[in-house]
Formats: sequence, structure tokens, C-alpha cells
Amino acid sequence: MSDFELVVIGAGPGGYVAAIRAAQLGIKVALVEKDRVGGTCLNRGCIPTKALLHSANTYAAAASFETLGLSVSGMAYDMNKIHNRKKEVVETLVKGVEGLVKANKIELITGKGFVENANTVKVTCADGEKTITTDKILIAAGSFPARPPIPGLDLPGVVTSDEVLEGEPKDYKSIIIIGGGVIGVELASFYAALGCEVTVIEALDRLLANLDKEFGQSLSMLLKKRNVNVCTSCKVSKVEKDGDNLKVTYTNKKEEEVSVSAEGVLVAIGRKPNTAELFAESCTPEINRGFIVVDEKYETNIKGIYAIGDAIGGIQLAHKAEAEGQAVVEMICGNKPEVDPHFVPSCIYTEPEIASVGMTADEAKEKGIAVKTGKYLMSGNGKSIIDLQERGFIKVVVDEATDKLLGMQMMCGRATDLISEYTMAIANGMTRAELLKGMRPHPTYCEGISEALEAVEGKSIHSAPVRK
Amino acid sequence: MSDFELVVIGAGPGGYVAAIRAAQLGIKVALVEKDRVGGTCLNRGCIPTKALLHSANTYAAAASFETLGLSVSGMAYDMNKIHNRKKEVVETLVKGVEGLVKANKIELITGKGFVENANTVKVTCADGEKTITTDKILIAAGSFPARPPIPGLDLPGVVTSDEVLEGEPKDYKSIIIIGGGVIGVELASFYAALGCEVTVIEALDRLLANLDKEFGQSLSMLLKKRNVNVCTSCKVSKVEKDGDNLKVTYTNKKEEEVSVSAEGVLVAIGRKPNTAELFAESCTPEINRGFIVVDEKYETNIKGIYAIGDAIGGIQLAHKAEAEGQAVVEMICGNKPEVDPHFVPSCIYTEPEIASVGMTADEAKEKGIAVKTGKYLMSGNGKSIIDLQERGFIKVVVDEATDKLLGMQMMCGRATDLISEYTMAIANGMTRAELLKGMRPHPTYCEGISEALEAVEGKSIHSAPVRK
Repeated sequence: MSDFELVVIGAGPGGYVAAIRAAQLGIKVALVEKDRVGGTCLNRGCIPTKALLHSANTYAAAASFETLGLSVSGMAYDMNKIHNRKKEVVETLVKGVEGLVKANKIELITGKGFVENANTVKVTCADGEKTITTDKILIAAGSFPARPPIPGLDLPGVVTSDEVLEGEPKDYKSIIIIGGGVIGVELASFYAALGCEVTVIEALDRLLANLDKEFGQSLSMLLKKRNVNVCTSCKVSKVEKDGDNLKVTYTNKKEEEVSVSAEGVLVAIGRKPNTAELFAESCTPEINRGFIVVDEKYETNIKGIYAIGDAIGGIQLAHKAEAEGQAVVEMICGNKPEVDPHFVPSCIYTEPEIASVGMTADEAKEKGIAVKTGKYLMSGNGKSIIDLQERGFIKVVVDEATDKLLGMQMMCGRATDLISEYTMAIANGMTRAELLKGMRPHPTYCEGISEALEAVEGKSIHSAPVRK
Repeated sequence: MSDFELVVIGAGPGGYVAAIRAAQLGIKVALVEKDRVGGTCLNRGCIPTKALLHSANTYAAAASFETLGLSVSGMAYDMNKIHNRKKEVVETLVKGVEGLVKANKIELITGKGFVENANTVKVTCADGEKTITTDKILIAAGSFPARPPIPGLDLPGVVTSDEVLEGEPKDYKSIIIIGGGVIGVELASFYAALGCEVTVIEALDRLLANLDKEFGQSLSMLLKKRNVNVCTSCKVSKVEKDGDNLKVTYTNKKEEEVSVSAEGVLVAIGRKPNTAELFAESCTPEINRGFIVVDEKYETNIKGIYAIGDAIGGIQLAHKAEAEGQAVVEMICGNKPEVDPHFVPSCIYTEPEIASVGMTADEAKEKGIAVKTGKYLMSGNGKSIIDLQERGFIKVVVDEATDKLLGMQMMCGRATDLISEYTMAIANGMTRAELLKGMRPHPTYCEGISEALEAVEGKSIHSAPVRK
């Protein structure tokens, strides 16, 4: 008999959730983690980013106090204290996960896991090596920030999200962010909110290039209003020391070579899977560009070895890993997964928030699907006006033939929570008519969704009438 | 031929929405309003309350600046400026509605409408009387704050929400609020956030007595922490002048007579329908305790006369009136209503927000329905911790036999927007399993809903395991 029925390597949101679900289903499970539980998400990802943003956005909100009838003097921030608060949040949540692991009687083994064969995991711990046997292995090893081979990206002062979120606090007066994806724009928002001079350099033609193009365009405008220098279609060629600063040289849209200097440089151009030094040569599953290849049950080509989360690619988000973690364990037990892991919402914690699920109208067209679309501008939404929200919109994409919701794109207050309903709707194949049946309360942001759904048929109440 | 196909009396959220929908469907429509468009909701209801709360909550949030790594040396509010900001918000939205009415080519007639007969409306305008003929009439006359016959409730200084929201700003040092329903607790939150000494006196045994009892209990605790004196099971017997103050005398739980004094007294114990002086005697539809009686198509017992909103009773909320306004017009045109007007979410804009739809577990038991319930405490939710949210929970009620969602009660950040999904789910008869299929993003408040849904089967990931 093996020591365990399941060994999970990696205690990030994919791994620890899988281990807890396994324990709930009566499986004897071990969780191997070289660092603290919580993985990237809790320790140097989503959670610390949102904690930093909460402090910075609260600071920036003081600019609107006068509008609200309030006055404030001597408003200041302390970067060390902001980071201490972030650490406290992380600590609270890490301790919470540790408590859950213990309460569920999961064996937590601290050390680096290595798959010797399909039934044996070697763990290199601080006090030596441990070898454990198991019926099945689940890899939830996560990912790390990529540093592409651009000259100078290894200079001191060039950081990734790891150092910003887990390292020593640094109160930059100016920073250049290479990469205008989710991590890039969230950290740009953080520094800009504190008055730092921010430059974002993105190689593609817009920010958030993987999402609906209106997000990137609108966000560019908003960030520019907040004094962020947004440079799109710009390719970085090198980073050099420039006195106490760092100088980034890039080629712009017009093929001109341009340089910009700042105190710090942050590289945020993607993440790579943690799949090196994980498997014995004789027991290495199929890997494609670093990502572990799995079937629809998250099993690799080696029977009994499964993988989920960032390590298998797709959208690298905590909730995708969590859903896969639950799904793989349910399927191992012969159950149907409760959460459908195929429809993954994207959330960006800018102000206003951005959230998206399913297809954009452009993507539907590319696939040859005839769609109907509806759009509502949130400038007419009461709650948005009360809360001083800037520029926002909600767009819905509906299958013309079936009336089924195909996609939803929102840039508005609370979008990251509002998207829940539409992920659920798409996972259940719901129609526009079904979504409209729900009475949305007043005054809320979600009223804008009813308007967008009605707009598909030209019946938005709070939009100017459509000319026929 | 009549002047109009439809005359709507009352341009609140029920009436103006009905008129716009009618215009969209090609109906020749007039809208009669004695005051400004927008009704109670826009002018002296939801909108001004939420605008005031936004200022006050922003002010109160400064207490947590230090926790967030921020500092401030002077923070002050100006009650006149807070009210001016509220007026600006109202003005923006009223102008928006006026614009929509015009753009939809709806004839807006300013004056008091009176139903002479089923095809004739007399409007008393500033410049005389106007008589218009119409095929159908829709009454959306709304309601006004009740002043029950308690001695002293007519004293100067005793106000209702009308005076607080539309009258001269008053910066009370202390206030007594009679009534712990929605309006009472929202305005208690407003004054308490600004440091005013607030007493709430409620006759029933808890705040928000129409809703799940845990709301009232939790809210009492939170308000007490904010120095609000919450008195439940207390019956007010009289209000008297007490020097410059007003003294309220009430009988408490122990049948003792107690008095409390404050600068102001606010009466918030319900609203009465605006149905007096609306109909000619020969053309008065059936009225029950002031409310117009309608059938399932919102038609009164007089053919061609319809009524919706506060004037017909039920939950007196803008979104209910809006949904009924759309529904009645769609049905007049022979269409099925798009929004189901029967499932009405309740929202309370306290901190944290409160929202509820469908049945509570207690209500289900009373009806003899066997239910399964799930609950999640938001103290374990990452987003709640980041945002410094206090005490919150999410509860779900599911039919044991069918797995269908029957009710949802939430007290947590963004609850008023989160409730949208579950109103829609109940309107569509969705099951717990269907609701769980949607992947809820991380880190969000809505993750707590997945936890509550999983808790129904003892499978909440982020709750301590259920002992068997």
C-alpha cells in the first residue's frame, strides 16, 4: 500500500484547493510545497497586488473629496507602511490556508517535490530528503515571471512582479513598465495613483491586447489622464544604466529609436511554467513549450500523473487553477466536476474595473458566428454617477440564431464581481431572454447590464432611442 | 380618435420607464407629472440617499487610512457642500430623464393629473386646466412618507425623508430616528458616519424586520460599534419640545417608559400611496387600504385603467415599479414581459451592503418546504479582508427536493450588485448545481457565493471542515 492516495506538488490555489477537495472526498492526500502555502497568487500575485491597489486607490480618491463636500489636508502615504499592510493581508490569508490544510488533515510536506516515477515523489526538505509513495500525483507547480533575452534586463534595478510584491518596498519617483498586459496595467495603476511618473511600453498595438480592443483603448485614455505615458507598438531593444537611473531604448510605431529614463524598470511580459527539474528523465510527461500536456481529465500521457493550473498553460489565473483543482479530484473520484473549468473570466483591477468572459464580437466574426450585440455607456448609470466613476461601458454578444449569450465585456465599477453572473450563464448555455428576466435592483452598476441586454433589440430604456 | 393611446400619470421610475417603453413600441404616449420627472426615487429617495451616503462613507473611511499606510492631518465635512453634491447628482439624472423623454417624443405635461373617466384625464397645470383624451390610462402616482398619529409628530423639527433629502441641509449633532426599516437604517448610517449621535427606535424586535433576522442582528451590532443607540421592541408614545431639542418618549422591552432628547427627529415608518384626489367618484377603481387593486396584467377593475409601483403596494422600490412599468406596456401590446416583475430583490445601502431575494429558510419552513441551506462567513474571503470589510455572510436556501434556489441573503461588500445573479436564477428556476457551474473569479466577493453554494453539501473549500 502506498503512503498516500494522492500527492499534490505545489500548494498554490490550484494545489491546496485540490488537496482540500480530495480530503473532503475521503482521499488520503499529501501536499508538497517548497515555499509557503498560497503559491504565487497569495504570496506574490493577485492578493498583494490588490492590497497595494486598495491603499493606492484610497490615496488617489482624496482628489475627489472636495467634489463630495469633504476637505482634507496633509494627505500622505508611507510606502513601507503600505507594504506592511500588504504583508498583513498576505499573512492572514496564508495562515488561513495553513489552518484549512491542517483542519482537513492534509499532510503538508515542506520541500521541493520531484517525480521519480508515477508512484514515487522525492521531496528535498531543509533537513534532508524524503521519499513518499502514492497512487496518483497531481502537478500544480505554477509559474514564474519571464525575463526575455533583451540586453540589460538582468541589470540591478530591473525587477519583476516577484520583487515588487514580495521584495523590499521601493518608493519610485519614476518607473518604466515593460509590458501592458494585466500585471503591467495593474502595477502602472498602483504607481500612478501614488503620483509616480509611469511609462508603459507595450510591443503590441494596444494595452490588454488579449482582450476586447475597446478595453485597451479606453484604459489608455484613462491612464494618460493620470499622467501615465502609454507607448504601444513599441519594441524594447535594450536597458542600460543611466547614472542613478535606468534607460530603456525602444523602437516606436514610426520605426524611430527612442529612449526614456527612470528610477526603476519593471518587466511584466508573461510568466513561464515551473516545469523544469520536476520529473525524472524516465518519467517525464509530454511537455509543449514548457507546458505539461494533459487530456480532458487533466491526466498527462503518464497514467496516474495529472497536472493543472499555470503549469498546463491557458489563462494563468488563480480561479482557473482552483476550478481545475476541484475538477481533477472530482473526476479521479468518478464524479462530474461542479465548476465548469472551461469558461474562465478575466478580471483586471484597474479603476474602473475590467472583466470579460466568453467571446468578443470580433472573435465571433472570425469564427463565422452571426451575432447580435448590445452596448450601454455607463455615463448614464446612476450608481456610476454617484460613485464618480469614469468612462465605462458594458457590451454583450449574443448568438443571432439561438439568442444564447456568447460573451460579455465590462469596464465599470464592480465589474470583477458582476462578471460572475455571465460566466455562469455561458456555462449553462443561457439566452439573452433568460438573463433579462431577472429584475436588477436600483441604483446599482448591474442595471447597466439590463440596459446592454435590452440594447441588443434597441430597447435600452436609458439610452437615446435608436434611429430607424 | 383620442389625443393619446396611453396617458401615464406620474413620472417616477415606474411611469417614465413605462412611457419610454410605450414610445419604443410605437404607442402615442403622454406623461403627466406635477413635479419634476424622476419621482421619489430620483428627487427624494434612492438617489439622494446614496449620494449622501457616498460622501459620508468616504468621510468615515478616513478612520482606516492609517491601517492602509496612509496619513491625513485634517479631515472635515461641510454639510451644505455634501447636499450640494447630492443636488448635482439629482440634477444630472433628472436632466438625463428629461432628455430621454424628449428624445423618445413623449409629451410631458406638467401638472396634477385627475382621472375624469376611463378615457379622459384632466391636468391642473400652472397656467390652467387641460383635458386630454386617451385610449388607456396608467397610474404610477407613487407614495409619500407616512406620519402616524403619535402626539407631537407634527412639531417643527420632526422631519421625514422628504425634508432630509430635498429640504434645507441640517447638520445635526444628535438625531432620533423613529423606524428601523430600510430608510431608517440608511439615514442612521449617514448621520453616524459623520459623527452625529444617533438613536434608532424600532417597534418590532429587530432592525430590518421584514428581512432575514440575521441581517437585523448583525446590523445592530455594527451600528452599536459606530455609536448608534439601537432600541428595538420600543414603542414611541409622544414627541415633545425640550428646550432647543426634541424629546421622544417610548416604552421599552421591559414596559418601562424612557425618554431621549436630540436636536432632530426623523420619522421613517413607512410610506402611503398617492391615491387620494386622483379619480372622479364615478371612475374610482377598487382601492384597498389606499392601494389600487390590480389583476395580473396590472389592470384595475375599470377596463383601460392600469396601475403600477408604490400605488399598488407590495415592496415599494424603484426597480419593482420599473419592471412593472415595462411589463404593463408589453402586455398592453400583447407581448410577454421581458423582466419578471414577481421576484423583487431588496437592497440596503449600509456598510457592508445588504441584499436579499426569494425566501429565507424560516419562510420556507413556514410554508412547509423542506430546504437545504448553506452559509459562508466573509471573514475568510480575501477581497473582504483587503477592503477592510466588517462582519459579513452569505446564505443560500435551496429546495431539498429539486435543488432549485429559493432564496439568497447576503451582507457583504457589493451585495446590492451581487444579488442580480440570484434574482435572475430564481426567475429562471435554476438549481444550485447550475449556479455552481460558473467559475467565480479571484479575488472577489462573489467567491463567497460559490463557498455558500458548496456549503450546502459540506464542500466549502474555505470553511473549516464539517464534523461528521
